Amino acid sequence: MRPVRVVVYGVGAMGAIMTRLLVDKGAKLVGAVGRSPSKVGRDLGEVAGLGTMLGVTVEDGAEAVLGRAGADVAVVAVSSYLETMYDHFRTCLEHGANVVTIEEESFFPWATAPTLARRLDELAKRHRVTILGSGAQDLYWMTLPCALMGSAHRVDSVQGRTTWNVDDYGPEVAQHVWAGSSLEEFESHLARDGWPPFVVRNTLDALVADAGLTADGAQTSVRPVLAEVQTPSSSLGRVIDPGQLLGVIDTATVTTREGPTFTFEQTGCVYGPGQSDVNEWIVRGEPDELRLRNDRVPTRLATCTQVVNRIPDVIRAPPGFVTVAELPRIRYRHFALDSYLGGP
Amino acid sequence: MRPVRVVVYGVGAMGAIMTRLLVDKGAKLVGAVGRSPSKVGRDLGEVAGLGTMLGVTVEDGAEAVLGRAGADVAVVAVSSYLETMYDHFRTCLEHGANVVTIEEESFFPWATAPTLARRLDELAKRHRVTILGSGAQDLYWMTLPCALMGSAHRVDSVQGRTTWNVDDYGPEVAQHVWAGSSLEEFESHLARDGWPPFVVRNTLDALVADAGLTADGAQTSVRPVLAEVQTPSSSLGRVIDPGQLLGVIDTATVTTREGPTFTFEQTGCVYGPGQSDVNEWIVRGEPDELRLRNDRVPTRLATCTQVVNRIPDVIRAPPGFVTVAELPRIRYRHFALDSYLGGP
Repeated sequence: MRPVRVVVYGVGAMGAIMTRLLVDKGAKLVGAVGRSPSKVGRDLGEVAGLGTMLGVTVEDGAEAVLGRAGADVAVVAVSSYLETMYDHFRTCLEHGANVVTIEEESFFPWATAPTLARRLDELAKRHRVTILGSGAQDLYWMTLPCALMGSAHRVDSVQGRTTWNVDDYGPEVAQHVWAGSSLEEFESHLARDGWPPFVVRNTLDALVADAGLTADGAQTSVRPVLAEVQTPSSSLGRVIDPGQLLGVIDTATVTTREGPTFTFEQTGCVYGPGQSDVNEWIVRGEPDELRLRNDRVPTRLATCTQVVNRIPDVIRAPPGFVTVAELPRIRYRHFALDSYLGGP
Repeated sequence: MRPVRVVVYGVGAMGAIMTRLLVDKGAKLVGAVGRSPSKVGRDLGEVAGLGTMLGVTVEDGAEAVLGRAGADVAVVAVSSYLETMYDHFRTCLEHGANVVTIEEESFFPWATAPTLARRLDELAKRHRVTILGSGAQDLYWMTLPCALMGSAHRVDSVQGRTTWNVDDYGPEVAQHVWAGSSLEEFESHLARDGWPPFVVRNTLDALVADAGLTADGAQTSVRPVLAEVQTPSSSLGRVIDPGQLLGVIDTATVTTREGPTFTFEQTGCVYGPGQSDVNEWIVRGEPDELRLRNDRVPTRLATCTQVVNRIPDVIRAPPGFVTVAELPRIRYRHFALDSYLGGP
């Protein structure tokens, strides 16, 4: 076996973590795509803070990097929503690289972005490669609740609740959830532009599909989380005043033709002292209640570990746009990634 | 599709629950094997407390029942340890019935009963059927911790802890954990007969194998749980006095050649007021800690639901003695069992 050849596509906080994990797991880094002038032209090892040079320069021309890299896979961490990400994914697939991404809509794009997903599916099939959305949602929002449902005789409802700390993901994500803005600013934004259905909706679509059920309705909503005391935010670089937004709570409900209803509530906000990420699922029916809870979830790091652990799966998967429901459940990779390409 | 044809092999508390679930899920019950004189000769529906007759008589001759039934699968809930169960399984396999069982050693028998497991594996292959151990351990002690490990970059240790209520399982199980006996009786039994490695060991063997690691050592131990106050036991039909055993704590540790260590502690005892089943796993390494917890686990019912939900998997699995690590993760079955025989 030769090492798995990987392009790191997006060299922000997540790309940096993934670079380190990939090196640890025996991958050969064969290209890096970035856009920040402070990173382009520098060595990936330096940009990722590894303390060693990797001999891979961060470049802003994705076409050139992918065209030259001969990559087995690109790990893509750039931005949210398939519309924004389409061209990035296209570039990878056209150059014969499998894609595993933390872009949230890609986790299950079939209900919210079916046209783009179909186009990428065709493109991937034509080039005999696979595109997959993974990240924290793989284990925490999909595998765990689906497995929990596997001990139910009858499911009436599935209810999930998760929290994440805006300060773990930098200023772009902080703005995305309107952290630090006033309630008035947030509400006038909502009235003017609405609020797109976020990953909560895609997660429920994935759960419904995995259970073999048919969605017949979906509702999404958002509400603000307001600071009660002065709350410092490292991603904003300032203190959020009482009454301003710490972030938002995204909620989605999907009903099914067969009866079971699915609800997921995701709180993304700047944390106060002592807060940590929680992930909780409750399945009601028979048995009356099945409960699962993860405390102190290291969501940011676990997002990256799961992308790396999925690499053997995405390389071996049938071509096309696949979701984790179609793959074996996520597994620990104790050895170099290439050693998993022969077996299950 | 025709209904899945099922023999209920063992009509105790668990067999009764499974009978009800099977009827609900559209299975056709084609035989029932029991040995209690109070049950043999009666209709399975009556024995299972369904309030309806199923037209299936409980018989004590397994050969005759299996020979006549043309069963797709036998759900077997009789006793613990492969040595005790070997002939029961043999009878099913020889008559071309797949087997799914809650017998604990069958969950992963390769380290503790390799000879018997190999013999059953050969027998199953000869008759082109599959034998599988499932039950509560499928989800709670295997799928969940293995999936949790799937979000680790490096595993140093895996630590599980679970509790179950002896009173949920009847007098035979109560005796198995020496509930109601004195500390002296328990200790002299230990000194005389030792304590066989129970399902905690088989669970860890399964986890180690699923992670692709190699066990290089195993230790098991048992210690008593003593009553502090007078504790009524429904399975014993009497009150356990302070100082007597409520049950035991079984612990196993398996070390691996590659480094990670696995520990599992299982408390089986008569509960006091307000106690409920807990299942908890902690994976340490990088991330520092990954935590998962199930509160108020309905272990007894979930043991039965998982056996029923595994029926499509065991029918479709390759012939032989398989473990859940080789199968797709356990899934909810919303529809009749036969409808899952075509797809994933």
